[in-house]
Amino acid sequence: MTDAERASRPGGRTARVRADVLAAVEAELAEQGYDGLTIDAIAARSGVHRTTVYRRWKTVAGLLVDLLRAGLDDSWEPADTGSLEGDLISLNREVYAALAARPSVTQAVIAASFRTPEAAEALTAFWSDRYSRSEAVVRRAIARGELPSTTNAHQLLMTATGPIYHQLVLLRQPMPRATADHYARAAAAVGMSGLGSRHA
Amino acid sequence: MTDAERASRPGGRTARVRADVLAAVEAELAEQGYDGLTIDAIAARSGVHRTTVYRRWKTVAGLLVDLLRAGLDDSWEPADTGSLEGDLISLNREVYAALAARPSVTQAVIAASFRTPEAAEALTAFWSDRYSRSEAVVRRAIARGELPSTTNAHQLLMTATGPIYHQLVLLRQPMPRATADHYARAAAAVGMSGLGSRHA
Repeated sequence: MTDAERASRPGGRTARVRADVLAAVEAELAEQGYDGLTIDAIAARSGVHRTTVYRRWKTVAGLLVDLLRAGLDDSWEPADTGSLEGDLISLNREVYAALAARPSVTQAVIAASFRTPEAAEALTAFWSDRYSRSEAVVRRAIARGELPSTTNAHQLLMTATGPIYHQLVLLRQPMPRATADHYARAAAAVGMSGLGSRHA
Repeated sequence: MTDAERASRPGGRTARVRADVLAAVEAELAEQGYDGLTIDAIAARSGVHRTTVYRRWKTVAGLLVDLLRAGLDDSWEPADTGSLEGDLISLNREVYAALAARPSVTQAVIAASFRTPEAAEALTAFWSDRYSRSEAVVRRAIARGELPSTTNAHQLLMTATGPIYHQLVLLRQPMPRATADHYARAAAAVGMSGLGSRHA
């Protein structure tokens, strides 16, 4: 195999370089925040030559955008626990864990989205994809007969997760994990009451 | 009356200067965003001498912090419509109007809170005060017998307003105003079902 072949095959050197660099972006972002990110520190941490990082990603914003794009390619799916309430609790615990972590990569990416339009666009695309995948939770609940077939899936997911984002990101107030479970139960109850299909 | 007396009495010149400057901050913030704010432009717009603005507020961040502090001193109270659902719909429409406005001072202040720690602290204090005043909605509903006395007021308000903030601020996706009403109805239903007192 030539170097060129090795570099271009999936999972080959190009993919490894990207994985190493993006892992370094995550670690630096969590430790330093967006303001502290430098291409030199990311290159040093990843062991990838700085010239390679500059050539491929150009700017710190470019690195962040690629980190979010990598999330679009991953295999994440919402947990299938067998019930609407269980699925929403699982989802809310993931959201809670990502936002309450210290340091939190998610919080750092959100902060970056208020500084760089490219980061804002990439984050919007990332969340749009995640919420779209999460609608499987609602489809399964409809199939089980837990929810009316006219349920507005997006609104149900926003009812579950919105309060956690608001409290931990915008209000910047701590929240016990049990409260994340509460918002999941509340959203499940709204959906099961049929109220969730009014604006379907 | 001496100038000194006029300047120090409530509603006097000092208060008028502050009101003029803060109105200019709001207008500039909405038009230019936080990055475009300059003390010179605010001075010019308000008709207050730039030396006065520099002496009293020192920095752009200081102006923003004072704008939020002025909100703590105002007389805002949640509307009293006679029902929990009506009060929450009214509250959600206010939140929606503030976030969906183009330009939106609220969105600009939120963006600023991710750039300046002083703005973040001032915004946290502002919201803490607003949500605390909004708990009157829950107290009235308890008094009317619409809600159990053990209802967690903060969680109920977060259930109503959280999804609007999440969608319009973080997800950066448009939302019809009717959806704000839906989240208010959903929160009222959760509270009236008794689910809202689990973690009271």
